[in-house]
Amino acid sequence: MDFASDTTGPAHPSVIEALAATNTGSASSYGADDVTARVRGLLTETFETNDLDFRICTSGTASKALALSVMCSPIGAIACHEEAHIERDERGAPEFFSGGAKLRLLPGQGAQIDESALRDALANNDPSFVHETPIETLSLTNLTECGTAYSVDTITHYAALAKAEGLNTHLDGARLANALAHMGASPAEMTWKAGIDVLTLGLTKTGAIGCEIIILFGRMRSQFDTLKARAKRSGHMPPKMRFLAAQAEAMLTDGLWLELAAKANQSAKVLANML
Amino acid sequence: MDFASDTTGPAHPSVIEALAATNTGSASSYGADDVTARVRGLLTETFETNDLDFRICTSGTASKALALSVMCSPIGAIACHEEAHIERDERGAPEFFSGGAKLRLLPGQGAQIDESALRDALANNDPSFVHETPIETLSLTNLTECGTAYSVDTITHYAALAKAEGLNTHLDGARLANALAHMGASPAEMTWKAGIDVLTLGLTKTGAIGCEIIILFGRMRSQFDTLKARAKRSGHMPPKMRFLAAQAEAMLTDGLWLELAAKANQSAKVLANML
Amino acid sequence: MDFASDTTGPAHPSVIEALAATNTGSASSYGADDVTARVRGLLTETFETNDLDFRICTSGTASKALALSVMCSPIGAIACHEEAHIERDERGAPEFFSGGAKLRLLPGQGAQIDESALRDALANNDPSFVHETPIETLSLTNLTECGTAYSVDTITHYAALAKAEGLNTHLDGARLANALAHMGASPAEMTWKAGIDVLTLGLTKTGAIGCEIIILFGRMRSQFDTLKARAKRSGHMPPKMRFLAAQAEAMLTDGLWLELAAKANQSAKVLANML
Amino acid sequence: MDFASDTTGPAHPSVIEALAATNTGSASSYGADDVTARVRGLLTETFETNDLDFRICTSGTASKALALSVMCSPIGAIACHEEAHIERDERGAPEFFSGGAKLRLLPGQGAQIDESALRDALANNDPSFVHETPIETLSLTNLTECGTAYSVDTITHYAALAKAEGLNTHLDGARLANALAHMGASPAEMTWKAGIDVLTLGLTKTGAIGCEIIILFGRMRSQFDTLKARAKRSGHMPPKMRFLAAQAEAMLTDGLWLELAAKANQSAKVLANML
Repeated sequence: MDFASDTTGPAHPSVIEALAATNTGSASSYGADDVTARVRGLLTETFETNDLDFRICTSGTASKALALSVMCSPIGAIACHEEAHIERDERGAPEFFSGGAKLRLLPGQGAQIDESALRDALANNDPSFVHETPIETLSLTNLTECGTAYSVDTITHYAALAKAEGLNTHLDGARLANALAHMGASPAEMTWKAGIDVLTLGLTKTGAIGCEIIILFGRMRSQFDTLKARAKRSGHMPPKMRFLAAQAEAMLTDGLWLELAAKANQSAKVLANML
Repeated sequence: MDFASDTTGPAHPSVIEALAATNTGSASSYGADDVTARVRGLLTETFETNDLDFRICTSGTASKALALSVMCSPIGAIACHEEAHIERDERGAPEFFSGGAKLRLLPGQGAQIDESALRDALANNDPSFVHETPIETLSLTNLTECGTAYSVDTITHYAALAKAEGLNTHLDGARLANALAHMGASPAEMTWKAGIDVLTLGLTKTGAIGCEIIILFGRMRSQFDTLKARAKRSGHMPPKMRFLAAQAEAMLTDGLWLELAAKANQSAKVLANML
Repeated sequence: MDFASDTTGPAHPSVIEALAATNTGSASSYGADDVTARVRGLLTETFETNDLDFRICTSGTASKALALSVMCSPIGAIACHEEAHIERDERGAPEFFSGGAKLRLLPGQGAQIDESALRDALANNDPSFVHETPIETLSLTNLTECGTAYSVDTITHYAALAKAEGLNTHLDGARLANALAHMGASPAEMTWKAGIDVLTLGLTKTGAIGCEIIILFGRMRSQFDTLKARAKRSGHMPPKMRFLAAQAEAMLTDGLWLELAAKANQSAKVLANML
Repeated sequence: MDFASDTTGPAHPSVIEALAATNTGSASSYGADDVTARVRGLLTETFETNDLDFRICTSGTASKALALSVMCSPIGAIACHEEAHIERDERGAPEFFSGGAKLRLLPGQGAQIDESALRDALANNDPSFVHETPIETLSLTNLTECGTAYSVDTITHYAALAKAEGLNTHLDGARLANALAHMGASPAEMTWKAGIDVLTLGLTKTGAIGCEIIILFGRMRSQFDTLKARAKRSGHMPPKMRFLAAQAEAMLTDGLWLELAAKANQSAKVLANML
């Protein structure tokens, strides 16, 4: 159960303070500013690796669709759960950003992809069969749409299955902090160490005004320039990027995002016990 | 000459104050909040009409491309100046959002479309000729890319020429405030009274963090639901819309946006005289 | 059971004869020729109505995707069976031609959509809910991918359910002749009289070289100019259209298409009995 | 001057004979047939190289747009003459097939790109500048829209300039035969030996019913699988491909395509002298 997915409540006070603090003097546009540079440092620390690149944007819909557009060609498919947010709640954004890729829907309890369904889909995937659209990317969501959490082991296992068939794996982490708190895992363990190639990390539901980060790990860093161009083309390269970075900085500093999610999980548990 | 197009400077203090003031209690998501309702009142007042609908978004690139996507079909063309921002500086955003519409480039001094070039293009426009892409929309920019301003008379004249051929007219007002200040015209005079069907009004270059408003006038209001769906699909329907609305409110209240632009124009003039 | 879906066998001799007969003298390009005019007469006769417009193209994939692109917006969805040809065997053509529409997959025995699944999908369809993609079109296939046939009654019923929710209904008739022969229905009964708005009629599997006809009935005729422009844009407006029309003429004259399908059905039945 | 661009006249008798001759027995679908295999032999002979792959399609619009879609990304641009067929006469097909690439229009006398305009465009091309769409491909047309011909030297020179900037070069050869006849050049000399990466070879205007060949030379052969998938997706992978191949075989055998073009050029010259 999860009640943290709240976009009706206020932003965390430090986010507002960060915006005010950023609003002094001049700064480079489009992400070449000091705040964005500091966010890089925080991400390196949070994810325990320097082998990443990132883009911040205001929208979860856009962060996922942009990420998927550099992970899947217009003539490929993205495998995801049939109740995934990218299928149900984003008005076709992945299809739009990718230029017409398909979503291949997989079943499973609690909005988690069933292992045998995944194995079947991968076993039948034949990129050389021109009539059917081959799966190019696996997209997992943690927390899922039902508020359940994949374990680090399952993610690791699924990403390995995907990799064995030449696929990339995306993690929709709109509520990653809640999953981490629930599972007691570190950000690194649940992402690149588990085989995740691209993470879309949501900070909006936890306390930002509108702040989502696309993180490319390892070899997917080769897609950074394309991602940047696609961000520009879709109106997700704000000139005053420093105000987006300020939100990210406030949330990531001293693990505020994790602390807030842990509290939200705790409140949800208390409430669930009462009901 | 124009020096107001600054995205390196800080936002106006009232914008930051407005964000802080908005951050209290709960509010409806996706634009059903009180702040957005107040922005409607301010737009009605500013443009002296109730016959409008609007969407706020963070990005000028997106506001223009979204507007054009409800004004031009994928199999139509948008006529604009060959140096227009939508042609030169938006990485193909209009083509992307429209699903493949073409830009038809027209020449002219000072980044203003030449009247005879416009007349020629319209005279040769034949929607029934299936081989060539017909112009469906005229897009004007004021201030232009060179910092020159179209007069109200010219806009009125061009929009009438377009209308006579069944076209809609879009006004790219990323720096509309500067054009109004320069020409001594009112917002209503330079837009719907002049025959403009859709305005994209920029407040970012004047003092917001990232705040652009798409305004549909008159019969174009029929496109509002489509515009909303396209905004969602492209990641431009932020859940916490109230923070965008707060920026708009701060800028529109007591004509702050016009006041700041007038000052910027004045500074530019002083500097130009010095040089 | 169905063995008529053969693209490895030769074309019917009358098709080749028709091509040779067409190859004399000059003729207008792009469908303004006499042969195409005669096909209109044959379609009027075959479908017992003058209230239709049509386009011929070489490809079944294209005829369906073009038809769907004028029946569903880029921000809408097409409901079809989860095993439908448009989902399984066309490499994302509907998504490509429509500019990113989604297919909403419905279950059912024998590749026929289950009535309750259709009713559920329609009952939950809310075009005003911006997050989820609303269904705009229902696509039925007859014969289905399994070689079973919908009855005229079922088609009539489903099209009425769709219409009640403001949807259009498309009939994928790549093997319509076989369905008609099997059901003993007339072309009119199984299409516009049953509420079908757009039919894509296949003649390739029955005996043409490559000849498929998109037929717009009644109010969908308003989409003819758009269909033509989209055909041009996708390379499906051949200059020497008369050779496509010649194939259609050969197949439609004296009901050859129906005769060949009846024979194929008969052979299939004999073979099935033997097995 | 050129009068060969005729789509109103009949096809050459050998084309019809070839269709009839092909219509015997069964054959593999989708290009795995003997006729298509023989076309490969003829192309190898005609172009004096084995280092090519090809796809046949019915449409010139499609052959060009498909070719360009594997040569230019959705976020790139194609440089071409401002009067090029791909800009003026194809209803936005390149934009559609590529997923939104831009055409960058260059001036020049006689529908031939001016060298200095090309040099300027290349000199200002900066793929790292995210705001503007970088040129990824140069598209030349021979014969041009005016019926003039580029020399082998000019093509070689322009392709080298393009290559030096990391671009591919496409040759729109809808009327290549006429250019070869006019210039006295061989197919190899005017294509891959001159630095052309992809040729779209038209046989329709010279005498086929509808037959255009996309030829990938050298390293561009890596794009063959993508080209095939895109052909399928756009309805340009006919199951009975052998009838398309039969047209190609008839036209290429004993250089019939070149012979017919030479005659057409001769007739045009006689007529021009008379006028």
